[in-house]
Amino acid sequence: MAVIGGGVIGLSCAWRAAADGWTVTVVDPAPRSGASWVAGGMLAPVTEAWPGEEDLLALGVESVARWPAFAAAVAEAAGQPVGLRADGTVVAATGSGDRDELDALAAHLARLERSVESLTGRALRRLEPAIGPDVRAGLSVPDDLAVDNRMLLAALVTAAEKTGIEFDARSADGVATEAGRVTGVRCAEGPDIAADVVLVCAGAHSAALHPALTGLVRPVKGEILRLARRPGAFPAPRRTVRALVDGRPMYAVPRDGDGLVVGATQAEQGFDTTVTVGGVRDLLRDAERVLPGVAEYALLEVAAGLRPGSPDNLPVIGALGPDGLLVATGHHRNGILLSPITADAVAALLRDEPVPEPVRAADPARFTHGEESPGARVDQR
Amino acid sequence: MAVIGGGVIGLSCAWRAAADGWTVTVVDPAPRSGASWVAGGMLAPVTEAWPGEEDLLALGVESVARWPAFAAAVAEAAGQPVGLRADGTVVAATGSGDRDELDALAAHLARLERSVESLTGRALRRLEPAIGPDVRAGLSVPDDLAVDNRMLLAALVTAAEKTGIEFDARSADGVATEAGRVTGVRCAEGPDIAADVVLVCAGAHSAALHPALTGLVRPVKGEILRLARRPGAFPAPRRTVRALVDGRPMYAVPRDGDGLVVGATQAEQGFDTTVTVGGVRDLLRDAERVLPGVAEYALLEVAAGLRPGSPDNLPVIGALGPDGLLVATGHHRNGILLSPITADAVAALLRDEPVPEPVRAADPARFTHGEESPGARVDQR
Repeated sequence: MAVIGGGVIGLSCAWRAAADGWTVTVVDPAPRSGASWVAGGMLAPVTEAWPGEEDLLALGVESVARWPAFAAAVAEAAGQPVGLRADGTVVAATGSGDRDELDALAAHLARLERSVESLTGRALRRLEPAIGPDVRAGLSVPDDLAVDNRMLLAALVTAAEKTGIEFDARSADGVATEAGRVTGVRCAEGPDIAADVVLVCAGAHSAALHPALTGLVRPVKGEILRLARRPGAFPAPRRTVRALVDGRPMYAVPRDGDGLVVGATQAEQGFDTTVTVGGVRDLLRDAERVLPGVAEYALLEVAAGLRPGSPDNLPVIGALGPDGLLVATGHHRNGILLSPITADAVAALLRDEPVPEPVRAADPARFTHGEESPGARVDQR
Repeated sequence: MAVIGGGVIGLSCAWRAAADGWTVTVVDPAPRSGASWVAGGMLAPVTEAWPGEEDLLALGVESVARWPAFAAAVAEAAGQPVGLRADGTVVAATGSGDRDELDALAAHLARLERSVESLTGRALRRLEPAIGPDVRAGLSVPDDLAVDNRMLLAALVTAAEKTGIEFDARSADGVATEAGRVTGVRCAEGPDIAADVVLVCAGAHSAALHPALTGLVRPVKGEILRLARRPGAFPAPRRTVRALVDGRPMYAVPRDGDGLVVGATQAEQGFDTTVTVGGVRDLLRDAERVLPGVAEYALLEVAAGLRPGSPDNLPVIGALGPDGLLVATGHHRNGILLSPITADAVAALLRDEPVPEPVRAADPARFTHGEESPGARVDQR
C-alpha cells in the first residue's frame, strides 16, 4: 500500500499497517514537516470540548486513553523517547466574558461527567505559580497529556524505517485509478507508484489528490511560537496552560528542558503559511498576560502551519470513491491527539473489520448525502 | 596587512587598503555576519544627534556626505548594487513626553544650523500616509540616506575578492607581537598569519584581541525584525521612520521590494544574542503604534546582534599599543553610517597622513590618560 503524507497521521497509520504485515511506501518530499511539525502537542480533549462537538470529544477521549500505550510502542519500536508528559492541563480565564465561557465549559463537562475542578485565580496560582494576577478563574484537568510533537515525529520515522517502510521523496500529484479501482500514486515526476490501496493522509493538501476528496478539507492557518526559559527567568508552568484572553484562545505547552510552545492563531487564508506581525503580536501579548514571566524568555522560533479543517470539525477517516482509496485527514487542531485511534481505525479498515466505535462519526460517508456509501473494500497484499 | 573582522568596517577598510596597494588578508570565520548583518542600514546622523554628542554628529555628517561616492565606488568595483536610498527620514513622536524630546532635538539641531522641518502629525501623514493617528508631531530630514546593509555587505565581499583580498576563515585569537611590534594574527587553529600591520575591526569582540584594547568596547545587544508587506496590506513608508514611543526609540527602514526593517532594542547583557519575548513584543507594539498597517505584514525574521559600544559612544579609530596595531571599532549603532569615513581614516593612517578632521575625536589616545600617545607608525608592505 502507499500512504500519501508523512505527517503524524500518515506515519502512525503506515507504521501500524507495516506492523500488520503490509508492504508500505510513504510518499512525501518532506516527511514530518507541515502542521505536525508546527503543532503544540496538547493531548487535551476534555478542554477542547465545546458544546455541540460531542462526537469530537468522544473521539478525543478514546484516543487519549490509547496514548500511553501508543507512546510506549513507538518509543520501543524506535529505540528513542517520544516526550510524553502526564502533568495535566489548567484552563485560565482573564476578563469577565472569558470567565462566563469557562463557566459554560465547566457546566458542559459536568453534564458529561468529565472530571474537572473549578478553581479561583488564587488556587490556580498555587498549582502553577507562573500564572499571573490577570487570571481570575480556572479549571484543572489532571488527566490530560502532552507530547513533544517533534520528538514523536522523529521516533515515528525511525520506527517506520526499522519496520521496513520505504520513503519516496517525490511529490504526490494524485491517486491513479483504473476501472473503479486504485492502481497507485501519480507523482509530479517519474513513474506512478503502483499500489492496490492508497491511504491519503496529506492534511490540508488532501482535497486536491482525488475528485472524491474535493471539499472535504480546507487549510486553516495557525501561527505558533517556540520559547525557551533563559537563566534567571521565572520557571515555566509544569502543566499545559490553556487560556481565554479577551475571547482569544491561547495555549502554552511546556517541554522537558525549559521549552514552552505557545499557540495558536486561526486564519482561513488558503495555502498561505506567512507568519504575520498581528498573529505574533497577539500570541506574545496573550502569553504575557497569562504567564508574565515569559517576557524574559528567548523567542526561538515563529512558524505557521496549515491545519486540515473539515466541514464539521470532525476528521475524515474511512474508504471512499474507487475501491482501494482510504482517507485519514481533516484532523484540524487534533492530529497529534487523534493519531493512535486513527492508526487503529485504518488498521481495522485494512482488515475489513469495524472501526472503533467513536471513529464511525468520522466516516466520509456522512458527506455523500444519500449516495451509496462506499464500503471498506480493500484487499491485503 | 591583516584585518581581523569581516563586518562592514573590516570589509570597507580592507577593500580601501587593497585599492591603495596593500596585500590584505581578512580573518573571519563568518564574514558579513554579526552586527553588520543584523543592522537596519539607516544613514541618518542628524536625527541621531542628541545634545552632548556633537563629535559624533560631526563624524556622522562628514560620513554621510561621503556615502554617495562610496556606494557608487563599491557598486562599480563589485559589479552589483548596494541598495542606497535617498528618500530622507521623518521622526515621529507619540506621547507628550516624546513630543517634548522631539522639540528639544529640533531646537538643538536649529542651534547647530542643521536642516530640519518641524511638522504636525497631520502634515507628517501627508508625507507618509503609513503613519498612524497616534503620532502627534514630527520632523522631516530630507537629506538622510539609507542602505540595504545585506546588499552592501555582499557587494563589499565581491569587491574585496575582485581586488585580490584573501579571506582566512579561521577564528582570530589575538594579535601576535614581538619586541613591541606586531608580527601577525594568532588563530584558534593552525599557524599565525604573518603581518606587519594588524587592523582590529572585530566589533564587540575586539576588546579581547590585545591587552591594549581591554575595556575599549563592550557588547550592546540589539534586537531587530525584518518584515515584508503582503498583498493587500497598506504600503510601507517611503522614508526612514524614526519614532519615540513612550520614551522608547524605534525605527523602520524601508527596503526596495516591500521590505521593512524594524529596530532596535538596546540591552547590556554581555555576549548574549538571544532574541527575547519582551524585546520582540516592544518592537511589534511600537511599530504598530506608529505604522498601524504593519499588522498585516509578514514577520520574516527576528534577530539580535551585538553593537560594539565604546565608553563615550564615539568609535575608536587609530593606532595604539605595539607598532603596527591599528583599530577601527566601537561604532556602536553607527557602523554602516561610519564605514566610508572609517575606511578613509584607516587609509590615511596606513599612509602616515592625518586622519579626516572629525575622526580625530575617535583617536584611542583619548583613553590613555596621559600615557604616551602611540603614533601611527606603520610601514607599507
